[in-house]
Amino acid sequence: MSGWIAVAGLGPGAEALVTPEVSAALAAATDVVGYIPYVARVAPRAGLTLHPSDNRVELDRAALALRLAAEGRRVVIVSSGDPGVFAMASALFEALEAAPEHAGTEIRILPGITAMLAAAARAGAPLGHDFCAINLSDNLKPFAVIERRLRAAIAGDFAMAFYNPRSKARPEGFARVLGILRAGCEPGRLITFARAVSTPDEALSTVTLAEARPEMADMRTVVLVGNAATRRVGRWVYTPRGGKP
Amino acid sequence: MSGWIAVAGLGPGAEALVTPEVSAALAAATDVVGYIPYVARVAPRAGLTLHPSDNRVELDRAALALRLAAEGRRVVIVSSGDPGVFAMASALFEALEAAPEHAGTEIRILPGITAMLAAAARAGAPLGHDFCAINLSDNLKPFAVIERRLRAAIAGDFAMAFYNPRSKARPEGFARVLGILRAGCEPGRLITFARAVSTPDEALSTVTLAEARPEMADMRTVVLVGNAATRRVGRWVYTPRGGKP
Repeated sequence: MSGWIAVAGLGPGAEALVTPEVSAALAAATDVVGYIPYVARVAPRAGLTLHPSDNRVELDRAALALRLAAEGRRVVIVSSGDPGVFAMASALFEALEAAPEHAGTEIRILPGITAMLAAAARAGAPLGHDFCAINLSDNLKPFAVIERRLRAAIAGDFAMAFYNPRSKARPEGFARVLGILRAGCEPGRLITFARAVSTPDEALSTVTLAEARPEMADMRTVVLVGNAATRRVGRWVYTPRGGKP
Repeated sequence: MSGWIAVAGLGPGAEALVTPEVSAALAAATDVVGYIPYVARVAPRAGLTLHPSDNRVELDRAALALRLAAEGRRVVIVSSGDPGVFAMASALFEALEAAPEHAGTEIRILPGITAMLAAAARAGAPLGHDFCAINLSDNLKPFAVIERRLRAAIAGDFAMAFYNPRSKARPEGFARVLGILRAGCEPGRLITFARAVSTPDEALSTVTLAEARPEMADMRTVVLVGNAATRRVGRWVYTPRGGKP
């Protein structure tokens, strides 16, 4: 039997948010490759080898998957959320580009519920109109790129979703992001901090830009910033479909 | 038994992309409300009343759901894709704001696989770095807003996903969008036209901006525009994680 790779999105955490397509791929796999906490979400079973690896070794992990598939193994690379949003799909294609001997590998990308959409659903519909997704991690890009994109998103009056807003390694980055938002948006702009949505650690809070503090975010948080028309109705936050009414 | 509303995302089309959470809500429902082709995706059964309605009556549909829930019915409002992305969740909150007598309604938003992420998965990982989602329909917003957001997205070097790129009612809008892209991006910029992903009518093609033509899109198409670093590897299109290498 010939090998293959499926890059699968496990969604934000709850089993009820894993698509049947992803469950079927995991049931057919011989090997699961991924970041330690994501591999830990896959139930062990006879005939399935788990290959957990550490953060920041995405290219090594992708190269391992390509080697295993070449040996005839059926490999699922697991990502949290959706594999195409700040996750393993791009890393696999980078690895494939660097290893032309694996050009014929059978690859499928299996979408999942990405964190910003799970968070938006809990909050209401803050991304209900045009929006941007920005990764605030500066591991792989300079902060100047982040700043350029933030300013463009403000200029376009996009709602925004921020992934990886804050880590111990770079506690000051998110404070700079809030400063850029304050320079370009009104103080009443609504911001939702959504942590670990759909897991037992879930916590959600919505504040105004004036009230927002860097320590409201950590690496398990997705931050949703409304556009100029975003508002509350009861406990919900939503962005109207037609812009400012 | 008290009534409730769940606004559920059915994903792009395939049953294997419907989350178990959404399937459970449909199994518990007494009423399903939605646009005709989405309601047609729900299997009829005893005890379930289907309320299909036409396009562009989103607020009437949401008001019906609120009335039914007030009568104790368990109502699922079905959306294609994700209900929070250019779909029914915002319309429901608009209707709730206009009907304070329904403020106590139990509401849940159930996320789904949105069209751009299903399309991106088929193409590779074109949204693998910071990106924007823009609804090109000018039913509810003037074209000037669309143009402002396109220019901002180009200035920020975002990858982009366009929903509702073209309809019979406004065939010229997407030609103007391509013109704005040509003025701000290099002619080799990669554009993927993804039609009816995960359905029997699925069709995918990737061309350069120089080759792109308005008639490559219709209302069942999602258009994905890469950023300046987006490139091909074999049959795949992907955006590297760290910007231009």
